[in-house]
Amino acid sequence: MIIKSVLEDIRPLDIESMQKAINRLNSLTKPIGSLGVLEDLAVQLAGITGDVIPMLRSKMVIVMAGDHGVVEEGVSAAPQSVTPQMVYNFLKGGAGINVLARLAGAEVRVVDVGVADPTLQDPHLISRKVRLGTANMTKGPAMTRQEAIKAIEVGIEIAQTQIEEGINVLATGEMGIGNTTSSSAILATYSDMPLSVIVGPGVGLNVGGVERKVKAIGSALEVNRPDPNDPIDVLAKVGGLEIAGMTGLILGCATRRTPVVIDGFISGAAALIASKLAPRAKDYIIASHLSEEPGHKVLLEVIGLKPMLHMRMRLGEGTGAALAFNVIEAANRIMSEMATFDEARVIMD
Amino acid sequence: MIIKSVLEDIRPLDIESMQKAINRLNSLTKPIGSLGVLEDLAVQLAGITGDVIPMLRSKMVIVMAGDHGVVEEGVSAAPQSVTPQMVYNFLKGGAGINVLARLAGAEVRVVDVGVADPTLQDPHLISRKVRLGTANMTKGPAMTRQEAIKAIEVGIEIAQTQIEEGINVLATGEMGIGNTTSSSAILATYSDMPLSVIVGPGVGLNVGGVERKVKAIGSALEVNRPDPNDPIDVLAKVGGLEIAGMTGLILGCATRRTPVVIDGFISGAAALIASKLAPRAKDYIIASHLSEEPGHKVLLEVIGLKPMLHMRMRLGEGTGAALAFNVIEAANRIMSEMATFDEARVIMD
Repeated sequence: MIIKSVLEDIRPLDIESMQKAINRLNSLTKPIGSLGVLEDLAVQLAGITGDVIPMLRSKMVIVMAGDHGVVEEGVSAAPQSVTPQMVYNFLKGGAGINVLARLAGAEVRVVDVGVADPTLQDPHLISRKVRLGTANMTKGPAMTRQEAIKAIEVGIEIAQTQIEEGINVLATGEMGIGNTTSSSAILATYSDMPLSVIVGPGVGLNVGGVERKVKAIGSALEVNRPDPNDPIDVLAKVGGLEIAGMTGLILGCATRRTPVVIDGFISGAAALIASKLAPRAKDYIIASHLSEEPGHKVLLEVIGLKPMLHMRMRLGEGTGAALAFNVIEAANRIMSEMATFDEARVIMD
Repeated sequence: MIIKSVLEDIRPLDIESMQKAINRLNSLTKPIGSLGVLEDLAVQLAGITGDVIPMLRSKMVIVMAGDHGVVEEGVSAAPQSVTPQMVYNFLKGGAGINVLARLAGAEVRVVDVGVADPTLQDPHLISRKVRLGTANMTKGPAMTRQEAIKAIEVGIEIAQTQIEEGINVLATGEMGIGNTTSSSAILATYSDMPLSVIVGPGVGLNVGGVERKVKAIGSALEVNRPDPNDPIDVLAKVGGLEIAGMTGLILGCATRRTPVVIDGFISGAAALIASKLAPRAKDYIIASHLSEEPGHKVLLEVIGLKPMLHMRMRLGEGTGAALAFNVIEAANRIMSEMATFDEARVIMD
C-alpha cells in the first residue's frame, strides 16, 4: 500500500539548516526577530528543504474537485452543477484562483477526484475520478475505506510527480459544492466545540440553511460514528474525495521535503486528517489565511497552525493560499537579499 | 499656507464609481462578498481614484527619516547613530524595505526630514532637513509649530510631485531611533488607554527600558500638555519630524485621489494626525499589517482602520506596507481579470 510507506517516509525538519537560517537572520540589518512571521517562515523553509536559502521559483496550486451526496439535504446555497461549471472556469483561466495564481507567478492544475458529472472532460483536466461524488453521509458512509485511500493516493502521486518535474512550493485548493459540510463533520470528530460554532454559512446559506446543515452533520456523525483514532475512517465516512485528495497532496509534499501552503476551511480539514495520519506532516504545512467560515479558527487551533492573512475571504479554490505565495517569497528574499550589519556598517550598540 | 488649502482640497470618495465596482464584483464567478477584504479594497480603490478598475502599475515607498531628542532619556535599544547608518543602507538597497519593495515592483525614495547627523548626504537622498532632530520632549516641545507645519508640507509636496510624475499607489515608511516613543505619546493624547498598554518595547527594549519610556512619555505629556483639538500642536510638542512628513504624505495623496498604504505603529501615528486634521483623509488610507508593537491595535481602532496582514512584524521602514502592495494588486486584478457568470456560463441558482 502506497500510503503506509509514505507515512514512514516523512522525516523531521532539518534542525541544522534551521539553526543556520536563524544565524543568518540575526546577522541581517534589522532588530532580532523584527520581521516576525517572515523570519519564522524562513526558518521553516530551511528546515523543510534542508537549504538555508532554498530555491522557491516554481509554484503551483493544485485544485482538487469532487462532489458531495449530502447536498440532497439542502446544505448548500449553490446547486451541484456548479462544481463542473467551475472546473471549466478554472481550465479557462477565469476564476479567482487563476487570477491570484497568475499574480503570484504560479501554475494551476485541476484534478477531478470525484465530480458527480460523468461527462466532465478536458485535455487540461487531470482525470482521476475515484467515484461520481460521495454518497449522502446522513444515510451511511460517504465512501468506502478503499475509495478514501485511493483518493489520498491520487494526491500523493500528483504532488510527488509535480515536485519531480520541478515544483518547489505547492498550494492546496478545492472545488466541491457541499464541502464545507463534510469539513465541519471532520472537524466535529476532533473538537469538543458545539456544532453551532463549527458550522457556518459556506458560500451563502441563510439561517434556515445553516440549521439544515447542522442537522445533516449531526445525523452523519450519529449514523456513521467515525473513529477519531482512525483518520481514514473519518475521511471515508464523513469526508470528501477532494478533501482526501488534498490530504494526499500534503503527505506527498512532506515526503519530498516541499512546503505546502493550505488555503481555508476545506484545505484545513484535509490538513487535519494529514496531521492525524502523520504528525510530522504538520511541520511541512504553511497556513495562509483565516477564512470567514467560523469553524476555521477552531480548525487551525486543533492542528496547531497560525494564519497570516486576515482577509475575511471564504471563496476556497486555493485563493488564500495563492495570495500567501507572495509572503513566502518575501521570507525567501529577505534571506537572500538583505544586507548584514557588517556589509552595511550598521552598529546597533 | 499650503496646509490649509490642502485640507480644503480633500474630496469625498466617488460613490458612483464605488457602486459600479460593487456591481462588477457581484457579476464575477464567486459567491457575493466571498473575496472579503479584496472586494472592500476594490471598492475603496474605485472610490479613491474615480475609476472602476484603476491603473495601479507604479508603486512607491517613501521612507521619511528623522531623529528624536528624547533618546537622551534612554528610551531606545539602539543608538541615534543607527538612523543615518540605516539611511545609507536604504540608499544602497540592502535594508528590509528595499527587498520587500523590489518584490512588489515598487520604488523606494528616502527623505531626510530631520536626521540629527549634519553630514548626511547622498545624491539619491531627498534632503529636506527641517532641523537636526527634535528636542527632548520631556523638557519642552519637540519642535516649534512652524517646524511641524514645514515637515508636513515636505510630505505633501513630495507626495504630490511623485503622483504628478506617475506614481499610482504610495506607501509610508520611516526611520528614526526613538520614534515609537513619540508615536506612543501621540496615541496617548487621543486614547484613554493607560500608558502600560500603549507603550511597548520598540525595536527591543528590556523591562527597565520600557519603564523609562513610560516615564519619559508621562513627563512629555505633563510638560507640554498637547491639545488634542489641535493636531499640529500634538505633532509639534510630542511628535517627530518624520511623523509629520508622513502625515503630509497621507494628506498629499488624499488631495490627488491616490491610495496611500500605511505601515505599522509610527505610520499609524502619522495617519492619526492626518485623520484629525482632515477626517476625509482616512478614506484614502489602506492599513497594511498589525504590528507586534502593542499600541498598534489600539491606534488602528482609534482611527477606525483594520489591518490585513498579521505577521508579528515590528521593523518599520514601510516593510508591512510594501508587503501589502501585493494584496492591493490582487484586489485590482480580481476586477480586471475574473470572468463573469455570463462569460463562464456558471449558474448559481
